[in-house]
Order: sequence, then structure tokens, then C-alpha cells
Amino acid sequence: MSVPTDVHPTDSTRVGVTAARGFVASGVEAGLKEHGGRDVALVVNRGTRPASAGVFTSNRVAAAPVILTRAHLETATLTAVVLNSGGANACTGIEGAADASATAGRVAEILDVDSNHVGVCSTGMIGERLPMDILLAGVDGAAATLDAGPEAALAAADAIRTTDTVCKTIVVDGPVAPGEPVWCVGGMAKGAGMLAPGLATMLCVLTTDALISDEDAYNALTEAVRTTFNRTDSDGCMSTNDSVILLSSGDSGVCPGLTEFTETVREACGSLARQLIADAEGSSHDVDITIVGASDEVAGETVARAIARSNLVKTAIFGNDPNWGRIISEVGTVPESVAPYDPHEVDVSINGVMVCRSGGLGDSRDLVDMTAREVHILVDLHAGSHEVTLWTTDLTHDYVHENSAYSS
Amino acid sequence: MSVPTDVHPTDSTRVGVTAARGFVASGVEAGLKEHGGRDVALVVNRGTRPASAGVFTSNRVAAAPVILTRAHLETATLTAVVLNSGGANACTGIEGAADASATAGRVAEILDVDSNHVGVCSTGMIGERLPMDILLAGVDGAAATLDAGPEAALAAADAIRTTDTVCKTIVVDGPVAPGEPVWCVGGMAKGAGMLAPGLATMLCVLTTDALISDEDAYNALTEAVRTTFNRTDSDGCMSTNDSVILLSSGDSGVCPGLTEFTETVREACGSLARQLIADAEGSSHDVDITIVGASDEVAGETVARAIARSNLVKTAIFGNDPNWGRIISEVGTVPESVAPYDPHEVDVSINGVMVCRSGGLGDSRDLVDMTAREVHILVDLHAGSHEVTLWTTDLTHDYVHENSAYSS
Repeated sequence: MSVPTDVHPTDSTRVGVTAARGFVASGVEAGLKEHGGRDVALVVNRGTRPASAGVFTSNRVAAAPVILTRAHLETATLTAVVLNSGGANACTGIEGAADASATAGRVAEILDVDSNHVGVCSTGMIGERLPMDILLAGVDGAAATLDAGPEAALAAADAIRTTDTVCKTIVVDGPVAPGEPVWCVGGMAKGAGMLAPGLATMLCVLTTDALISDEDAYNALTEAVRTTFNRTDSDGCMSTNDSVILLSSGDSGVCPGLTEFTETVREACGSLARQLIADAEGSSHDVDITIVGASDEVAGETVARAIARSNLVKTAIFGNDPNWGRIISEVGTVPESVAPYDPHEVDVSINGVMVCRSGGLGDSRDLVDMTAREVHILVDLHAGSHEVTLWTTDLTHDYVHENSAYSS
Repeated sequence: MSVPTDVHPTDSTRVGVTAARGFVASGVEAGLKEHGGRDVALVVNRGTRPASAGVFTSNRVAAAPVILTRAHLETATLTAVVLNSGGANACTGIEGAADASATAGRVAEILDVDSNHVGVCSTGMIGERLPMDILLAGVDGAAATLDAGPEAALAAADAIRTTDTVCKTIVVDGPVAPGEPVWCVGGMAKGAGMLAPGLATMLCVLTTDALISDEDAYNALTEAVRTTFNRTDSDGCMSTNDSVILLSSGDSGVCPGLTEFTETVREACGSLARQLIADAEGSSHDVDITIVGASDEVAGETVARAIARSNLVKTAIFGNDPNWGRIISEVGTVPESVAPYDPHEVDVSINGVMVCRSGGLGDSRDLVDMTAREVHILVDLHAGSHEVTLWTTDLTHDYVHENSAYSS
């Protein structure tokens, strides 16, 4: 669950969304957040052979910027993304739609492109309109401070934080053939609450200097998201604003194979997803749930998600209690039509101790040490050869506090 | 959400499972519970024309007593149910199956019936075998103290408590035709944790002196459970031991119509379900979620359950925060194939204030008073004429504490 440092081959000059050639970014404080701090970010693709792709929440109550950006992607290649924290612009009616449109329009005007080349992402409270004068002034400020350096990438990552306690960025170098130039995928994300299925949390912008088509960008992105952000489930809640956008500049001149490109994007998304979980609201344990012996991937994922969403499992983990009864009880809630297995063959291990063997008592729960932040749950269904891992967190007093003490 | 007093036409001499003619019960302390208290209950049907029915957890990891009682019901009419707290006898392998069987056998021997006339229910920790010497001595004690009075019914209701803070009993009189004798449905239940779908929590024994067949008993019970216990969802977790058993003695001589009988059973189950929610672990609010304008019942129930299971909704309610964005966001997670509706037509009211109108901003959230224990959430999908109500609780520090501080 820790962020694998080997996928951070980042020197201090290559950070997040500006690591790939052809990108500039910025992050400024416009005044949208009650408690201050940066709140408007801009990422611009100056590459000559741009491509783009996006994956969005499957929530039917989609926020205005999601609807707008999805529509833009259908007609054009995005070359800029403007993002704000301090307000989700969700459930804000036709006024909210006009606000999102005006935000894209302002960026388009400054960059001298058609507005359907601009993506918009918002995060924050649902059901409140954005103060447009403040936001548009912030857009102007962001456009005036665009830069290709690492500070700009960090400022952008900072500006999209809500309850995130740290910035999340990543750079993953793609595999390089002898004599070829290097290329990479960089990115930033925000999460913290509403880490969920369908799509986790979240806003994420990925940039790359690989030379790819819109179609390959989309295929790589959807596949990468499927096994990373979509396998991240902190509290089972799916946001109205989830957006993952990939921009490529082509400026490396390298045209990687789709498989290589997909794996590089997957590594970047995987690292960002684990950074989100590690910083999820109020968590005291990072939990990976691995299902082996599943009949297929859907079976494994469904079982893993049932466990990840159980408040009884999550509170037990918070209490450092290897309560496997609560785990196998969740396994049992998955219908046989989805996950065929024999309940009398299921093994459950917690942190390497098989506390439940063949659906019954296994080794002593006293052998399980749960004091470390990382908790590993392994369930063997003995029903096939498929393996799925899903990441979640525990349910703590701090989670209840953060989500009850104020509106968000 | 409060227990409607008008369905408690109970004088102090008619309580719970002994209110109907023909039943005796008892509750004793055998020593199964770590902290003491009654832990073995027995309910015996002495009627001359007995019938029975049972509804059980749909969890595939069903406890030994569930498997046994389900099998008994397929071959015989139950005339006795023995229940214990202090251990679930779930995930205990063939030894656990033998333990459940031995428990039924001891009751059968004492009552001089075949053991397939005896139902067994257990509740408590999963994955530990019951101390059979203690349990069987408790069965002997329970059999020796069987009584038809109200104290016996209360002792039985007390003996099945785990983290329940109060006993849950009910008596509902059936409709009486002129000149006919009165008849009633009485019952007891335990809940507190694992209040969930598929079946709530829970152990419940209902008794009636109506004269009905096994088949009518089953039909009435499944229909009553569907709209009561199955619409009760405190924490989304489905137990391995959930059991609802109905015994009829026929001793009133009254043979009610199936509709009348079903409604009377439904009233009894509804009251017990609300008593369970009101005593759910750590809750500070009782919440009813009503979906109107649904295209059909499944649509309404699915939307209601999505809201009821959202930790973000539940923590907001704990914080007295009328956070409708979290509610409509959950509405949006339900696929259109299950619940057709237009997100731009959805209204959300909290405690009578329509805070979200037509999918957007409604009346001020400042108008909503959430200080009372009862919270009413009303969602109008404007997609049909069906209405569904589901009951849940908030997510509190006490819930986290009760489920993390010790193993259960």
C-alpha cells in the first residue's frame, strides 16, 4: 500500500503534470475556499500533436463541469484543463451549466482556442453556485502564471486539494528502446472523501509526451482506471464530479505500443490511487483486500468490494481486531450467480495468518499483529485462478468527525 | 419511527411470545455470556393444531442452527424453538453442526417429540464453538421453567439480547368478527448490530393462536418480512444467523383470511423492526427514508437503500447537517435500468423542508431542524406512483466505538 518509490524516478526538476515535455501549469489562490489557500489550477498542452481522453463519474447526477467536459471531448481534443476547489458546481441547474461554460470560455479566450478544447473540473460542496467573479479572476491569475517548472506542477496539485492533507503527484517513465528519447506520464490527483467505485474520489489530470491518438489515449486510460481508481473504495460513496483526464503532447516523438503505454498510465494511476487511500479522510489503516481463487475477475472484485464496504469489517480493523467472522460474513452476501464458490472451502488470512480455514476456525487470532498501518486481507475462494486486489481504509472516529462536524 | 402505541393493546398479562393461547416460554442464565445475564430461551407451542414457518438469512455463509432449522422446517412443523445468545455457532464446521443438532435433540428429548420439530437460533460471535455442557444445562433449566405468563415472555426476550439495551416484544390483536373469539400475534426479537438487507439483524420468534396452515403461515411471514425487517438497514451488514420463525397454535379456533392474517403479522414485524432500529448500536437518530414517485417498488427500494447505506449521508445526519448533496449523489448511483427517473426532476426534503427542488437548489438548508431524534428524508423521483419507506440510523462515534473496542 505504500507508494512504491521505484515508480517515482523523479528528480526534483520533473514533477507531476509538467514533467512531460510540452506542458505548463499553474495554481493560484482566487478566494473560493472558506479557509483560504490555492483554489484554481490550470494545465495547458502546448504540444504540436495533441491528443486527449477523459473518464468520468458514472453517477447520473453529474456535475455541470463533468457534463460540459464530456461534451467537449466528443467534438474536440482538449488542450487545456481548468480546475477549481471550493465548490463542486453540482446540482446547480442551468445557471451552473452556464458557469462551467463561462469558465471554459475565459480560458479559451486567453489561450486563443475554441472553448471545446478546454476541460473544466470542480470539487467541493454540492448544491452551491460558484462565485463567478472570484473564479474568473482566478482563471486570469492562473493563466498569467503558467510555467513548465516543478513549482508550477506542485502549485496546480495544491490548488485542487479539498480535505486532502498532502499534494498527490506522480511521474512514471515509459520503457525506452535503445536510441529512442525518454517519455513519461506525469499526473496529479485529489481525493480524500468519496473514494468509491464507478470512479474513485476524485479529480486527476495526467500528462504525457508520448505520441498517441485520441483513441489510444482513451483505451489506455479506461483500462488503467479500471484496475486502479476503480479498485479504490474508501467509503463506498461515488461523487458527482469524478474526472480523470489524460492529455498528450507528442513532444517526445516516441510512439509507444498500446500495451506499453497502457502499463505506464496504469502505473501512474496506481500510484495516485494509493496516495489517495493513504490520505483518505480519517483513516488509521491502509487496507489491501486480495481475492485469489476467483472464478473470474468480476467475482473477485465483487467479493473484495463487499468486504471493503462493510462498516463492521472497517471498524474491526480500526480496533486492530482480526475479526474474520465479519469478513467471511461479507463474502457470503455475494450471490452465487456472481461468484461461485463453496463456503466450506473459503480461507481468510489477515496479515499472513490464516485465521479461517475451509470456512471454519483456522489459526489463532492471537497470532495476528494489526498494529502496523498496513493491513493485508487475503481471501482464497478456491473456485478458479483469478486474482483481484482492492484498496480501502478503516472506519474511524476521525472519519465520523470529519464528515459530521461540518458540511462538505 | 417511534413504536406506535396503538398496536400495543397489551395489558400487563399479555406480553410477547406467550400472549397467544397455547404457548409457554422461558429464559435462563446458563453462563454463555462473558458479562453474565440470561442467555438461553425456549418457546414451546402446546397447541393442538400447530403450524410453523421460517425465513432465514440469504447469506451463503449460514450458521449451523440456520441450516438445521431450515432443514427441519422442510420435513416437519416446528413446535419448539430454542435460542441462545453468547455465540453464533457460525463457521464452526461439522462440529458446529453437531452442536446445533445436539441442542435440538436435548429439547426434543425433554418435550418427547422428534427433533425435527425443534428450531434452533443462535446469536453472538462468529467462529467460536459453543460450550455445549453449559448450553445443554441451560436448555434443561429453560425447560424446567416454562410458563405461560408475561414474566416468562420477558425472560425469553431478555435471554436473546446481545448488545441490545432493551427487550423487544410486541402483541398485535387481529381483527375480530362479531361473536368470534379474539386472536393475536405476539413476538420477540433481538437486533442491535448487523441490521441489514436480505434480512435485518436478527432473531425473531412470533407466536399466534390463529388457526392457519403451514403454507399460509409461510406466505404471511415472507410478505410481512419483505416490507418490515427487509426494509430495515442500520449498517448494511447481513448476518449469518438471521432467523424469523412463526409458530401458530390454532388455539383461538379463529381461522382469519390470509390478508387479515398477513396484515396482523406485518404490524407485529413492523413494530419489532422499528424497535430494533431505535436500539441500533450507537445511533443518535432514527431515520426514515421515503421514496415517492418511483416507477416500481424495486426502484424505490433500491434508491432508498443507496441513501441508507451511505456513510457520508449517515455521518451528516449525526452532525445534524441537512446535506442534501450527499443524498442526491446517492440517488444518482442507482442505474437507470433499475430506477428510471430524470435527475433534473428529483426533489429532496429533509424534515419537511424541500432543500433540493428539481435536482437543484431548493429552500434554504437553514430552515431544517435536525435536533430531534427522528429524521425524515423524502425523495420524489417524479417517475411513477410507487412509494417505499426504509428505516435506518445515523453513523456515530458510538457506532465506531462499539464495533472497534471489542470483538463481537
